[in-house]
Amino acid sequence: MPPIPIALGPTQERQLVDAIERGSGVLADIDAARGLVWATGPDGFPDPLPPGVEWVQLYAAGVEEFFTTGIIGRNPKVQFTSAAGAFANTVAEHTLALLLAGVRYLPEQILATTWRQPEFFPHIGTLRNSTVAIIGAGGIGRALIPMLAAVGAHVLAVSRSGRPVPGAVETLPVIRLDEVWARTDHVVIAAPATPATKHIVGADELAQLKPTSWLINIARGSLVDTDALVKALQNNIIGGAGLDVTEPEPLPDDHPLWSLPNAIVTPHLSNPPQRRVEAFAERVSANVARFAAGNELLSKVDPVSGY
Amino acid sequence: MPPIPIALGPTQERQLVDAIERGSGVLADIDAARGLVWATGPDGFPDPLPPGVEWVQLYAAGVEEFFTTGIIGRNPKVQFTSAAGAFANTVAEHTLALLLAGVRYLPEQILATTWRQPEFFPHIGTLRNSTVAIIGAGGIGRALIPMLAAVGAHVLAVSRSGRPVPGAVETLPVIRLDEVWARTDHVVIAAPATPATKHIVGADELAQLKPTSWLINIARGSLVDTDALVKALQNNIIGGAGLDVTEPEPLPDDHPLWSLPNAIVTPHLSNPPQRRVEAFAERVSANVARFAAGNELLSKVDPVSGY
Repeated sequence: MPPIPIALGPTQERQLVDAIERGSGVLADIDAARGLVWATGPDGFPDPLPPGVEWVQLYAAGVEEFFTTGIIGRNPKVQFTSAAGAFANTVAEHTLALLLAGVRYLPEQILATTWRQPEFFPHIGTLRNSTVAIIGAGGIGRALIPMLAAVGAHVLAVSRSGRPVPGAVETLPVIRLDEVWARTDHVVIAAPATPATKHIVGADELAQLKPTSWLINIARGSLVDTDALVKALQNNIIGGAGLDVTEPEPLPDDHPLWSLPNAIVTPHLSNPPQRRVEAFAERVSANVARFAAGNELLSKVDPVSGY
Repeated sequence: MPPIPIALGPTQERQLVDAIERGSGVLADIDAARGLVWATGPDGFPDPLPPGVEWVQLYAAGVEEFFTTGIIGRNPKVQFTSAAGAFANTVAEHTLALLLAGVRYLPEQILATTWRQPEFFPHIGTLRNSTVAIIGAGGIGRALIPMLAAVGAHVLAVSRSGRPVPGAVETLPVIRLDEVWARTDHVVIAAPATPATKHIVGADELAQLKPTSWLINIARGSLVDTDALVKALQNNIIGGAGLDVTEPEPLPDDHPLWSLPNAIVTPHLSNPPQRRVEAFAERVSANVARFAAGNELLSKVDPVSGY
């Protein structure tokens, strides 16, 4: 079988050319191509596409701009795919870093300027044999599960359907979310921001956690009631919080979260720009291989639902 | 088969009674016991042991005091076992916490009091597809390997013999240690302190690492030349260092490591007291089960070599 002709734009980045070839594609001019890998936003997109192009791989996880600019609407015979899920591993790694830093009491130790061993000893926790609830079983939640399993934690997953998530000890449907707080040691928020998920973590939920519990939010700030969280941290209701996202965002300079020693704020960088190209390259080679083999593509964009 | 009678001293801690029973033993008086679980140092040890006692499980990983007090020498027919290796998981977890905190640039973010996203972005690394050299393939090194594999890192193990270590991409014998520095992204020191391992990491070795490399030491301070490390950190020769052990120890208050933002010092607490009982309990039930089944015991003390 000859390699499948794939166009790449707007530039011919070496890493992506390699990825196309790894997926058993070959770089081609757009007019001779059956697929297009488009590694940026809508500006300069070849619209309308030549009739030979059956598939377009887009760069972002969220492709709203390709709807609002009409590009997807004007090319109804083309299957678009997004990069949704391609960045899950780096976000999951950041999540694990925040959770471990909290459980092993690193913030106070990073701030210390003297040997405070006896004082710190009792605060050193472990994820081993602990329960970690992951709210949201999408790409990030699923990527995190084997990382937590490797350090001996048990995962309680919460998903819309409650269908068993591989690697989780138990999966609850979101309608049973109320049960989670009293049953877990730590909580990871990895669910999308929707009207239904706004402030799903508030004062009542935090009160049911343990004084040693860490809350990690790497999803969106709106899922956590920030004022309630600040109070819980100030009163040591929970052990701490690791937040890659906040509400509001950016977090203003005078916000109490900056000075709380049991809060770690990382400024929305769990998926940093320099990691994206390599993660996107992995996705490109996977989808080129699937396209070449006639298999189901990853992260197909649905023109009706709009994502 | 009736449960095997095991004595427990000096106190009857519930967690250890349970552990004995989980290993299919039953708590017995010392005079009726075939084994003894001794959960503290030499003070008050039942010496000499009644003739029925064939095996003693000691609490510590290092059992020098039981040699120097003559207890092991006066009971030559008794097999002593130590807790060596029982604490490997918690130390490995701490190691992963330090390495991830470094690679994800958490220290600077914990110190920040304002939203510095563009400045921090380029510093966010990943363990995914990175190489981590583990110097020393004992219990801790081996416990760390699956944790690193779960975040997508490749392990280059260094052991005395160079025999392949399970889960490592490659294992080098210690005589080839020189090759490691230029070939790895990060280094974990997990080897015992001996005259041969003193200052195995010095200026020459640090110079061969990358400006993004993290050095983690959870073994003993003497393995790293602290002055050379401080210079390397001050000049950004490497990315940073996570140190649970230092030389000297405790680290004096005026030491430059306390104020370097690319150094994380945790005061020798990777194996905190409150974690030891549960880890010891795991070892007790494993060894009681082995003793009952007539299998090889874990961490047998050799009266000749003295450990």
